Amino acid sequence: MHIMEYRQLDIDNVANYMRELPEMQAIFSGFDNLDIQEVGDGNLNFVFIVTNKDKPAETVVLKQAVPFLRVVGESWPLSRERMNHEVRALKFQQDLCPGLVPEIYYSSEDMSLVIMQNLKDHAILRGEIIQGKVFPHLADHVSTFLAKTLFFSSDLYLGHDEKKEQVGKTINIELCKITEDFVFTHPFEDNETNEYNDALSKEAIGSIQRDPALRAAVAEMKYAFMTKAESLLHGDMHIGSIMANADDTYVIDPEFSFYGPMGFDVGAYVGNLFLSYFSHDYRQRQMGNDPTEYRGWLLEIAEKSWVQFEEKFLELWRAHDAKTDAPFMGKDLDGSSAEAFRSAFMKRVFADTIGFAACKMMRRIVGLAKVADIADIDNAEERARAEENALKMGREMILNRDKFTSFSELVDLATSISPVGGSN
Amino acid sequence: MHIMEYRQLDIDNVANYMRELPEMQAIFSGFDNLDIQEVGDGNLNFVFIVTNKDKPAETVVLKQAVPFLRVVGESWPLSRERMNHEVRALKFQQDLCPGLVPEIYYSSEDMSLVIMQNLKDHAILRGEIIQGKVFPHLADHVSTFLAKTLFFSSDLYLGHDEKKEQVGKTINIELCKITEDFVFTHPFEDNETNEYNDALSKEAIGSIQRDPALRAAVAEMKYAFMTKAESLLHGDMHIGSIMANADDTYVIDPEFSFYGPMGFDVGAYVGNLFLSYFSHDYRQRQMGNDPTEYRGWLLEIAEKSWVQFEEKFLELWRAHDAKTDAPFMGKDLDGSSAEAFRSAFMKRVFADTIGFAACKMMRRIVGLAKVADIADIDNAEERARAEENALKMGREMILNRDKFTSFSELVDLATSISPVGGSN
Repeated sequence: MHIMEYRQLDIDNVANYMRELPEMQAIFSGFDNLDIQEVGDGNLNFVFIVTNKDKPAETVVLKQAVPFLRVVGESWPLSRERMNHEVRALKFQQDLCPGLVPEIYYSSEDMSLVIMQNLKDHAILRGEIIQGKVFPHLADHVSTFLAKTLFFSSDLYLGHDEKKEQVGKTINIELCKITEDFVFTHPFEDNETNEYNDALSKEAIGSIQRDPALRAAVAEMKYAFMTKAESLLHGDMHIGSIMANADDTYVIDPEFSFYGPMGFDVGAYVGNLFLSYFSHDYRQRQMGNDPTEYRGWLLEIAEKSWVQFEEKFLELWRAHDAKTDAPFMGKDLDGSSAEAFRSAFMKRVFADTIGFAACKMMRRIVGLAKVADIADIDNAEERARAEENALKMGREMILNRDKFTSFSELVDLATSISPVGGSN
Repeated sequence: MHIMEYRQLDIDNVANYMRELPEMQAIFSGFDNLDIQEVGDGNLNFVFIVTNKDKPAETVVLKQAVPFLRVVGESWPLSRERMNHEVRALKFQQDLCPGLVPEIYYSSEDMSLVIMQNLKDHAILRGEIIQGKVFPHLADHVSTFLAKTLFFSSDLYLGHDEKKEQVGKTINIELCKITEDFVFTHPFEDNETNEYNDALSKEAIGSIQRDPALRAAVAEMKYAFMTKAESLLHGDMHIGSIMANADDTYVIDPEFSFYGPMGFDVGAYVGNLFLSYFSHDYRQRQMGNDPTEYRGWLLEIAEKSWVQFEEKFLELWRAHDAKTDAPFMGKDLDGSSAEAFRSAFMKRVFADTIGFAACKMMRRIVGLAKVADIADIDNAEERARAEENALKMGREMILNRDKFTSFSELVDLATSISPVGGSN
């Protein structure tokens, strides 16, 4: 193995770096006429799209971590370790879900970089959903990704020793800290990093910052995030971490990966769909549409994603237990105990999913990091209406997270706060 | 540092090993007239008591791990790594609770041994309780030990980075596996390692092996044991891991230490007191006593231990939050949120405590490892009565673990199953 000292790549030296790698020589027929674009949308890292101008099918993405938070600069140090987490997670996900994550061509721990498939025919899902596009395979693909990654990294499948070794290897101190602060703490304590829409009422903000029951519930979710080492999570599973087109769905950017509670990944995804739902009351009307159809699609996708996730997870679990002499709970002597456990287990994952989704929804309204679905609504009053609906839903979800018995009750809650056809 | 290759010590070479150590030279005035006893009661390790016959106050305990399970022999390999866990936990506990754990004089990772205080004026609590002795400081001392070790190793106190680093360092694969199998799995699946009292009814055994709701609940506790990395536990906190006299209480043998759920330590201790309670219906009558007094003391100690643990834990937490700018949940804007979180938190620890106590109680009746309190009752019918009471209580506890609102309800349950004055 060729050991190389770390250096930060830039537009001028990417080509020379790549031309030395056998893995790149296998993809590129030449390195003398490359188009190299530095893509500015990475908050954390530098991302280059490299394409052979002579043969545009020869194209890759190169992503390199720098020892600071890219969006802030060198004043916010952040170790390059995060790239190891991303590569480890990508490889794990790719083994289980080929075609649902970008293919890795090359990675280097020394250089803190990965070179992978350029998803040039796909777009970030959030942007597409903002535009009102539909994705017929989304629920199927995402539920497969979640079921496989969460089941196969859990104690229900892995040996007790391998699971614990994985937990140790995937401890991700710095990126978990970002979530701990910006998802679970700052938004709820009126932190100076928070950003509020001027049109958002003080009452709405107070309802999530000054209500003891809600604050206690959020703190419990934060504690669960920090202590429940269930599965190797993606860790940042919102709809900006998905690229899709009509046929394919790719989950990208797993640098926040660590062993955490299953419901955190599922909740991040579902919570973001609810945020989109609230945004499309206004957005669809702006586009001249009756909001009913698209908003109905969003709720349907959210529900299907959960229902199919649960089905697929249970299917994997039952199939595994049928093949092993030592199922997690021990032998099922009466023939009903294994299913009783599975049912209790999924109930707990569901409650966690709801609690985490709620945190993710509320933090996107008052915290530093917004979602464009809502934050980019040009009309401040309309934006505030979507925001207040999101906060209302987040409150109900987290306070009653143990009481929901099916996803359809969440759909009912969303439509009771804001009818599918719009204008509450 | 003097690096030494591992070799197993025996009665004949302990003295020569010790005489080379400066730490032992500081304790012993000479090494030529030592009394060396190999104490046969360690299941896992070799334990020697070494005393200077000329000056009996010069005495230590030397505990060495061997690369197999001592009680079985070389056919059951077990890495010496467990001694590192024991020493790490002992040092952590000693820093927080001097006088509640034996003092360490010397430890060697190479030799997998620790040399520590000989608790020659103290006896194993289980044996003392079997004889009906009372310990006026027990609840106070144990609750202090639990509150301090569980609070100061948790995310409520430690920095996010230090906590996660500790979790990684204290992963204890082999010893956790023993608990996973012998506490949470084998007893409930009619495993061939189980041992049943012939007089114990099939119905009683079936009530914990063939009831789907109970099996699901036990599996949930096993899953919690394996996934909830809350605090650095003792990991084997039954009353055989405590040495005491009228004045002092020492918690010993933390080789099972790892980051796990707080309720596992509290529950192990409390569950063992309930087992003693059921045994002393018969035992006190055998001694010619009215069982009321001693059984009342056992229930009182169990309740006081929990109540004082909760009080002390909350006190440490409030004191810490008062001193920090960044309490776990963020700033308390309304003045009631911090207490609302603390109350929800303790409720969850209480439910876990009850669930884990129940598992520990049930496994001691049908699993491989018994408690002498019950298993040594000479009358098989009387033993079965105590066993059935313990199973009945374990069932009620685990099935309703989320519903108990105070420890006094557990005391009521125990006395409803078997009145304090005896003979149900």
